[in-house]
Amino acid sequence: MPDKAAVRAEAQRLMAGFAAKGAVEVDPPILQPADTLLDLYGEDIRARAYITHDPVLGEAMLRPDFTVPVVQMHMASGANGTDPARYTYAGEVFRAQEEAAHRAPEHIQVGYELFDGTDPARADAEVFA
Amino acid sequence: MPDKAAVRAEAQRLMAGFAAKGAVEVDPPILQPADTLLDLYGEDIRARAYITHDPVLGEAMLRPDFTVPVVQMHMASGANGTDPARYTYAGEVFRAQEEAAHRAPEHIQVGYELFDGTDPARADAEVFA
Repeated sequence: MPDKAAVRAEAQRLMAGFAAKGAVEVDPPILQPADTLLDLYGEDIRARAYITHDPVLGEAMLRPDFTVPVVQMHMASGANGTDPARYTYAGEVFRAQEEAAHRAPEHIQVGYELFDGTDPARADAEVFA
Repeated sequence: MPDKAAVRAEAQRLMAGFAAKGAVEVDPPILQPADTLLDLYGEDIRARAYITHDPVLGEAMLRPDFTVPVVQMHMASGANGTDPARYTYAGEVFRAQEEAAHRAPEHIQVGYELFDGTDPARADAEVFA
């Protein structure tokens, strides 16, 4: 297994590359309100999710990925849906593992998200380039 | 409140400074077994801690600080207690906040730990220098 510090350094390097192409670096909280994630992914996610209680948020979940919090940040930013918006992120995501799997429950994830309401085909092409 | 990305960048800069002085960068898991932390800090920590369940660890806690996992990594490394060992770290720590406090429940913490069994006074002087 590669050293976690090495994985994190590589993730930072990739994120810097995306940022250099114009993506905004975002750093959403690890603790997310559970309700939105359960609505989107369904109750079945509970078997793989880490649920905890927060005095303010109520039921909270350790982020299983970045996509939902990044979409929420994008919507909260008041973006008008026509200007393309690019985001990049790197950090831990959490998926509970059954004992037999011998996989770590936390991983470093790095990613790039593009929101472009005007030309979805071109946007998809850019993401997969 | 300063931007989280700016805080993280500053923490990385400080950690790189400690590493340049000879500290080993460590990156312990966010999810820690709850039992050791409860033994050390007492059950009162539950009111401020985020507790969750992991299929392998059992009761797990989001790290409230780095000191305990860094001590455990140091002990697990088989250090003989005479050679000084220096560690540095940066990342999220978690403390539940009551609603009235309006403080974020997760913070970026950066730090430096020195284990030196031979000359505790000199070791303390180095840490606080």
